[in-house]
This record gives sequence, structure tokens and C-alpha cells, in this order.
Amino acid sequence: MILTVTLNTALDITYRVPTLVPHTSHRVSEVGERPGGKGLNVARVLAALGHETVVTGFAGGPAGAVLRELLAPLGPRDALVPTAGGTRRTIAVVDRATGDTTQLNEPGPTVSPAEWAALLATYETLLRDADAVALCGSLPPGVHVGAYAELVRGARTAGVPVLLDTSGEPLRRGIAARPDLVKPNADELAQLTGAREPLRAGRDARRRGAHAVVASLGPDGLLATTPDGIWQATPPAPVRGNPTGAGDSVVAALLSGLVEGLPWPERLARAVALSAATVLAPAAGEFDRRAYDEMLPRVTVRERAAAA
Amino acid sequence: MILTVTLNTALDITYRVPTLVPHTSHRVSEVGERPGGKGLNVARVLAALGHETVVTGFAGGPAGAVLRELLAPLGPRDALVPTAGGTRRTIAVVDRATGDTTQLNEPGPTVSPAEWAALLATYETLLRDADAVALCGSLPPGVHVGAYAELVRGARTAGVPVLLDTSGEPLRRGIAARPDLVKPNADELAQLTGAREPLRAGRDARRRGAHAVVASLGPDGLLATTPDGIWQATPPAPVRGNPTGAGDSVVAALLSGLVEGLPWPERLARAVALSAATVLAPAAGEFDRRAYDEMLPRVTVRERAAAA
Repeated sequence: MILTVTLNTALDITYRVPTLVPHTSHRVSEVGERPGGKGLNVARVLAALGHETVVTGFAGGPAGAVLRELLAPLGPRDALVPTAGGTRRTIAVVDRATGDTTQLNEPGPTVSPAEWAALLATYETLLRDADAVALCGSLPPGVHVGAYAELVRGARTAGVPVLLDTSGEPLRRGIAARPDLVKPNADELAQLTGAREPLRAGRDARRRGAHAVVASLGPDGLLATTPDGIWQATPPAPVRGNPTGAGDSVVAALLSGLVEGLPWPERLARAVALSAATVLAPAAGEFDRRAYDEMLPRVTVRERAAAA
Repeated sequence: MILTVTLNTALDITYRVPTLVPHTSHRVSEVGERPGGKGLNVARVLAALGHETVVTGFAGGPAGAVLRELLAPLGPRDALVPTAGGTRRTIAVVDRATGDTTQLNEPGPTVSPAEWAALLATYETLLRDADAVALCGSLPPGVHVGAYAELVRGARTAGVPVLLDTSGEPLRRGIAARPDLVKPNADELAQLTGAREPLRAGRDARRRGAHAVVASLGPDGLLATTPDGIWQATPPAPVRGNPTGAGDSVVAALLSGLVEGLPWPERLARAVALSAATVLAPAAGEFDRRAYDEMLPRVTVRERAAAA
């Protein structure tokens, strides 16, 4: 099975309003709720691709209970660890006319040392049956900044390939623990390495400890810097839609390709097609399967020379 | 005891953000949650004034469970009727710098005919021990527009004085059922009667069925049109602060004055002072007790001649 870890899960709430006008009152015409957090989205896409998946991380309080209830019928097995603090809510306020979204994100529960210890124990047990693991998203309050580095080391000790998808200091520290794969976007990669040029930044991130780096370049697709070579994969045409969750689908594609033993160009083509098919779907964690099937053979993957 | 009915209770959530900017993402620095809905605020103020209070209305789903949990330690006894649909949330997004608030209100659960019947049965039982009852706020989906008229008739049959605080068509129909008291603001009163002049509008509302009308005139205080006379009560000076809940405190003051058998001028002075002390408190359902004690003897109440 494939394991995904989401330390800061969220109950994602969507409100539709005619137009959001600050300092006025709004009647919300439509309320949507779904289980959120990057690792949960990754697991949903993996489950839809036919992989057995297990999710862990933290969930607690009333929002955590709703999240688990909504997750139950979706495919991934729930191995979330309870927290005394409440799972955060995120509110996306969508203007009905334009589709423009205003986002309000709660900070998340403060995780206690005992809860972190329970997560580590659960993680270790789950790693025994895992073919790969993805560590996804931000850290909730109370979790130490080297948490992902600790989880990367745990996966390496257990001999399980590990993908890290986070940003900032947790990414910097996590990379130093030598994960098999990181998936920053161009901005995150530049912030990490100080190099704006993705080829150079990818090489630098590998020097810092990542075995392979897949950087998302927005409409220009993906750039993979690996021990076997450097490839860029680009979609046949730009795709318009909701980019939320596109990065999570890239993670799902890369993990599934890794577990299936696909060569890098095929993994990257899958990632680009799945990402585009997610942009065309209404919500993160979902994708348009027909668009995916149509797009997959039309993705261009070309090998590139290393940076000077 | 004093009974308050809140058909559309709410879990009131407050988010503090630096500044709300549409179509961007915000980290919420502070999350507050409190039991909301006008009748719940009224009951909290009454409990703080030393009155035994019972609240009924509807509560359901995860937000309803949180609301009941937060209500438990606050004083009023919980006689809320369960709904299958979830209690609505309201989100107040407060700009930290200015205190300006943007409000997002969910519509509330759709109440089934069986749930409405259960509410009526609970209401009838509670009326037996009630010295007065307040019917407060908007109607949730599924409840018929004549609901308040039905509840007013129930109170009159039971011989319990009834105050109605709502707006629009539910107010219009409720007034026709002859409540003892209505508490519209000047706009609601004008909308109901077509008369912009409060003296004239108050007289008209009495003709439509209200035994007495107390209209809130904002900074100009309250205008009471009653069978015993017409009075205007005004605060000694304008009060700056958060006006949310000020109207609920007026209801609480009027009910407590009624139950205690106070003459109209004293009821009105209490209502103006309590309303001002609520504006000075951080949240609806709370008031600044020292401000209340200081303000009470300084409220001016003068009798007015009837409209021509």
C-alpha cells in the first residue's frame, strides 16, 4: 500500500456568495464540506488510480470528526491519530459570478508531545506494509520544525521510498535528511536554494540531500532532476480551471509511477496529464478521467542537458 | 422562569485577520466560537440579571453539538429540539487594525414537519412554567412563514406574556396574532407599516395587533407606544463600540421589567442602559455591568404626546 501523511489536515468548507464585499453582511447560498489537506488529496487520487492507500496525520475536535466521516466512503483507509485540539477549518468564499476565491485558513490544533509520540508510533507500524510514503503540507502548531526530517529518517530506516512535499524551513530540514523525492514549485525551489533558474536550483536541491527533485513550473509543466538524467515534461496546451490540488495530483502520479516501477519519462507524463485533469475537475483530490486519458499520450517529455 | 425561542440558532465563529482582501488567502490568527442566535443572547443576559431562563428552538449536526456544549456552562437551561440538519455557522471576519467586520451567514438546516411538531410540543410544555416568553430572530428553511403567529397564539392560549423580535413577513404575520410586545428597529417598523415617522409607525403597528411597540431608534434610544402612554428613553451620551447584541439586551431588559412588574419608564431606562452596556462589551449576550450601573440613573425618559 501507499501511505500519505498529513500533519495539518483540514475540513475544507466552500461558501458561495454573489460577491464578497468587505465590511458587509452576506447570505451564503451554498455550503460545501470536504476532507482537506494535501496528503488526503494525494490519497484520494491514488485510490482513484487503483492503489491501496492509508492516510495518517492528526484529526481532532468537531471538525476532525466531520472530516473522518466524510473521508470514510472515499477509498483511503483512515489511520489518523486523535488530537485534543480541533482540526482546522479552511473557508473558501467563492464569488458566484466570477469564480474568484477568497481563502480563510485557521491555524490548526496545537499538537502535544504525547500526540506527536503517538503519530510516530503509528507511522512506524504503517511503514511496515508501505511500498512508498508521501509527507505532505504544513506543520500544525506544536510540531517541531524538524518533524519532516524525523519522518524522512524513519522511512529510510524502514527502507520505504519517501516523497516530501512541503515548503520553507520544514522543507529545508527535511531535504537534509535525504528523501528520495521532493516536489517544490519554482518559487519554493528558488526560496530554498537562492537560485531562480530551475535547472540550477534543482541541481542545488540534490546537493542539499534530495535524491531526486521534481519542480513544477506552472504552465511549462515539470522539470525532473534525477540521478538518471534531467527531463522536462510539458502539456500539449495550457489548461484553464481550478489549480487547487494540481500539485497533489503530481505527487500521486509520481508515487504511483514509483511503486509501479515506471521509468522517469512515463512517471512525468502521468504527472503532467493527471495535474491537468485535476485543474479541469471542480475540487482538489478529484480529476477528470476522460481528460486524463486523452492528455496522457500528448504530453511531451524531452531530456535536457545538465546546468553548467 | 423566562423562556426564549430561537428557531435559527447559530454557532457564531469570529476570525481575526490583519485586513480582509477579496480574492487572496488569509491566515486566521485567532478563532473564537460562541453559541449564537438572538434568543440565546437574550437568555444569557437574563441569566446574568438573575432570572431563571430556558432556551428552546432547534439545534443539530456538528455545529449544533458544539453550540450546546458551549451553552451548558452559561446559565440558561438547554431545551433545544434536535434537527437532522446541521445548525448554521456564522463567520464574522474582523480586521485587526480597524475592527471592521465582514459577515458570512449560512442559511441554517431545513426543518422537517416532524421536527416542527416536536418544537411545538416542547414549547407547550415549557409555557406551563413560563412567566414570559420571547420569540427571536429569523426562521430556518422549512419552517412556515406563519410560525411566529402560531407561537404567539400558543402563548396567548397559555396566558403567558409574549414578546416578538423578528422582521419582514414573519413579523407582519406574528403581529396579526396579537403579541404583547414587539421590538422592531426604525427600519423594520417603517417596512412593516409604510410610515417612516416612528410615532406614527408605532401607532400603526399597534393597530395591526401588537399590544405595545418598543422601537429602537439607534443613538436616539427607544420609543415605546403602549396602551398606558408613549415614552421616549434616551441615553445620556452616544456610546461607541460593537452594536451586535444591543437589540437582544433591549429584549432582555423589557422581559425582565415585565416579569418584575416595573412601570414602563423603568423598563425603558433599564433597556437603554443595558443596551449601551452591551455595546461596550466585546460580544453579543454579554454586557459591561459597571457601565450598566452607572448609566441606569442617567437615562432620560419623557412622555410624549400621541401622533396626530
